[in-house]
Amino acid sequence: MTDVKATNIVWHEGHVDRAARRSLLRQSGGTVWFTGLPSSGKSTLAFSLEHLLVERGRLAYVLDGDNLRHGLNKNLGFSAEDRAENIRRIGEVARLFADAGVITLTSFVSPYRADRDAVRELHRAAGLPFLEVFVDTPVAVCEQRDPKGLYAKARAGQIRGFTGVDDPYEPPPDPELTIRSDRLSLPDCVNELVGLLEKHGLLRAT
Amino acid sequence: MTDVKATNIVWHEGHVDRAARRSLLRQSGGTVWFTGLPSSGKSTLAFSLEHLLVERGRLAYVLDGDNLRHGLNKNLGFSAEDRAENIRRIGEVARLFADAGVITLTSFVSPYRADRDAVRELHRAAGLPFLEVFVDTPVAVCEQRDPKGLYAKARAGQIRGFTGVDDPYEPPPDPELTIRSDRLSLPDCVNELVGLLEKHGLLRAT
Repeated sequence: MTDVKATNIVWHEGHVDRAARRSLLRQSGGTVWFTGLPSSGKSTLAFSLEHLLVERGRLAYVLDGDNLRHGLNKNLGFSAEDRAENIRRIGEVARLFADAGVITLTSFVSPYRADRDAVRELHRAAGLPFLEVFVDTPVAVCEQRDPKGLYAKARAGQIRGFTGVDDPYEPPPDPELTIRSDRLSLPDCVNELVGLLEKHGLLRAT
Repeated sequence: MTDVKATNIVWHEGHVDRAARRSLLRQSGGTVWFTGLPSSGKSTLAFSLEHLLVERGRLAYVLDGDNLRHGLNKNLGFSAEDRAENIRRIGEVARLFADAGVITLTSFVSPYRADRDAVRELHRAAGLPFLEVFVDTPVAVCEQRDPKGLYAKARAGQIRGFTGVDDPYEPPPDPELTIRSDRLSLPDCVNELVGLLEKHGLLRAT
């Protein structure tokens, strides 16, 4: 980009507006918030959607435990207070990503309704879409999958406060989408998610 | 985008790789970290660069006090510990944005070398560019500008711990760029910044 020269710079006090970002990216930033029990399939759905969107020329990015718990939130534990702060920070980062124009996919158990609702309100106040996706896989199925053996450890009492075993999961009363990953194929699930994005205008610039 | 159908979805365990993002955005994600005294011109430079880049089809985004201090970092004060945590969180968010492919511009006084160096190390470990820009405006000039009257309040003892008055600013010993915004015009400053991005490969996909 050797032709980028600052010939008409004016004094700017603030951000580029969202319309310019939408036009640049041919999409509208927003957050798709996956919630559900451990091993319900949230990450698989989020990453599959991320791959599909990027292949189709859309900018999507997954926020998950791997890039948050070991980084931004590494100084948080699992007390009730720290769990709430964990979700609050993730919600704030998602809002920034959405503001930047990115289709932001978050994959966290996020078991408490109040914490998720606070993130929804944060997006509403900023005029940004927040699409809650409930990955409604029955606990028996999640426990059978259990790729990391965490349910087994929780049942054996080696992990305390494990969602679905000895800590509650509060299902969303009114999510934008409910997905049964145990009944639909992965491509069908992802098609539903693409439909959700289309319905809420995230795949359009205006 | 009605032609987006998930026909060949495979099971994905992780993120889209960076090469795919670079190719999509025709740029390489990285962080440009502006540091300098209050009123040194950091935000003006960051926003002017953001506007220029977006106008030229590049995805850039400014992280600054307005979108961080009142959001992600609203539960932090101005103790030494909280200041360090403030910069740590900003650094983690910048790393996530850079990982997503965004040219990330941060505008914070960030007076302490150790805090900035920790953010540099975070990027180095993640294989992401970190370009420190020292906005080296003399304190007398900053104090004369003083658009919010903060230097005046600090001199009058109404604000304590104000960088440049009664709290130290530690200049970067080896920044990627030093800018004298009091000697160069704004367009010349922005041209230098574009040159910096070109030099470090952020405006190329590979």
